Amino acid sequence: MVLCDIGNTSYHFLDGDEEFKKSVKTFNPLEIKERVCYISVNQKVKKQLQGLENWSDLSSFINTQPYYETMGIDRIFACEAVHHGIIIDAGSALTVDVMKDGVFEGGFIYPGLHAMMHTYATISPALNYSFNFEVNLDKMPKNSQDAISYGYLKTLYSEVMSHSLPVILTGGDALAFHKLFKHATVDEMLIFNSMKKIIQKADIC
Amino acid sequence: MVLCDIGNTSYHFLDGDEEFKKSVKTFNPLEIKERVCYISVNQKVKKQLQGLENWSDLSSFINTQPYYETMGIDRIFACEAVHHGIIIDAGSALTVDVMKDGVFEGGFIYPGLHAMMHTYATISPALNYSFNFEVNLDKMPKNSQDAISYGYLKTLYSEVMSHSLPVILTGGDALAFHKLFKHATVDEMLIFNSMKKIIQKADIC
Repeated sequence: MVLCDIGNTSYHFLDGDEEFKKSVKTFNPLEIKERVCYISVNQKVKKQLQGLENWSDLSSFINTQPYYETMGIDRIFACEAVHHGIIIDAGSALTVDVMKDGVFEGGFIYPGLHAMMHTYATISPALNYSFNFEVNLDKMPKNSQDAISYGYLKTLYSEVMSHSLPVILTGGDALAFHKLFKHATVDEMLIFNSMKKIIQKADIC
Repeated sequence: MVLCDIGNTSYHFLDGDEEFKKSVKTFNPLEIKERVCYISVNQKVKKQLQGLENWSDLSSFINTQPYYETMGIDRIFACEAVHHGIIIDAGSALTVDVMKDGVFEGGFIYPGLHAMMHTYATISPALNYSFNFEVNLDKMPKNSQDAISYGYLKTLYSEVMSHSLPVILTGGDALAFHKLFKHATVDEMLIFNSMKKIIQKADIC
């Protein structure tokens, strides 16, 4: 049995200990003959998969009532795995969700690293820089690279830290953001582990 | 004599009391026969204008030494007009600059309203919302529109307010951001007034 977390840009598979990604643009789900238990925030892919017998959507095995209707299923699975903490899932979008003593308190959505870099570069070629994760957060910047890095990172950092909760980092860019949130726990398997728990609990797949 | 502040997307003119904008994509500067005093962050347009006798670049009449080399000339002109305060220029980029007792302390760059809306919509069609400027900043959101609004606006708001300085709003989206920064002074003429001062001081144009 294979696990799959489908985002806006890629299928993220876990097959035993082996993790791999496939682009939603090019991957054909018919290529996999094994049983796949999946979640998908990508509505287009979700529709495609509904006709395939070996692909099982795990979203129906979870009580989504404590969350909100349009909340991404990956965020819900991440929250289900955390009792108390603030979860940053750094993918194409960067989602930030608060769990307090097992209760979902709400969350917000920020652009992911690559989306935001692209945004600055599109506004002006003069803002075409990569982010400096070592930017001094205690001083207003006096150069262009730090001016965009501070704009993207300091604002996020202050908001996350204002909740005074343990920080859990997951998603494809978790390691990049670990440079910013130095005391965070990095758990790249958070969603897969949550999927495994749901599978065991519901005795499926 | 006409004033012109040239950004990444438009020429912003002031002719007496009349203000108007022209797209950088379609406007031909040869159309104007009058004397124009201008500043331009748009390097491509700046090069074009250098060959035109009736277009005078004001950037050489200012002491840019207190600022940094790659800082946009519009930000420098805005700072020159403010002795003590935090200036938000809400255009295609949203720039935030701090002046303390006449001294430039640094600044950062955040994506402008339309750039950021486009970014969310590009990440996923599920995030294709306009921003809710009335979003509750004291509570983590529980719906998609507020989740992106909080992501864009709360993070900016907290950073700006942390400086405990009077807030001055300028730029094309100043009025939209006035809903967020309710106690800010809106001064849509900030840069033009700064240009006028420089012109008087240097006895040019």
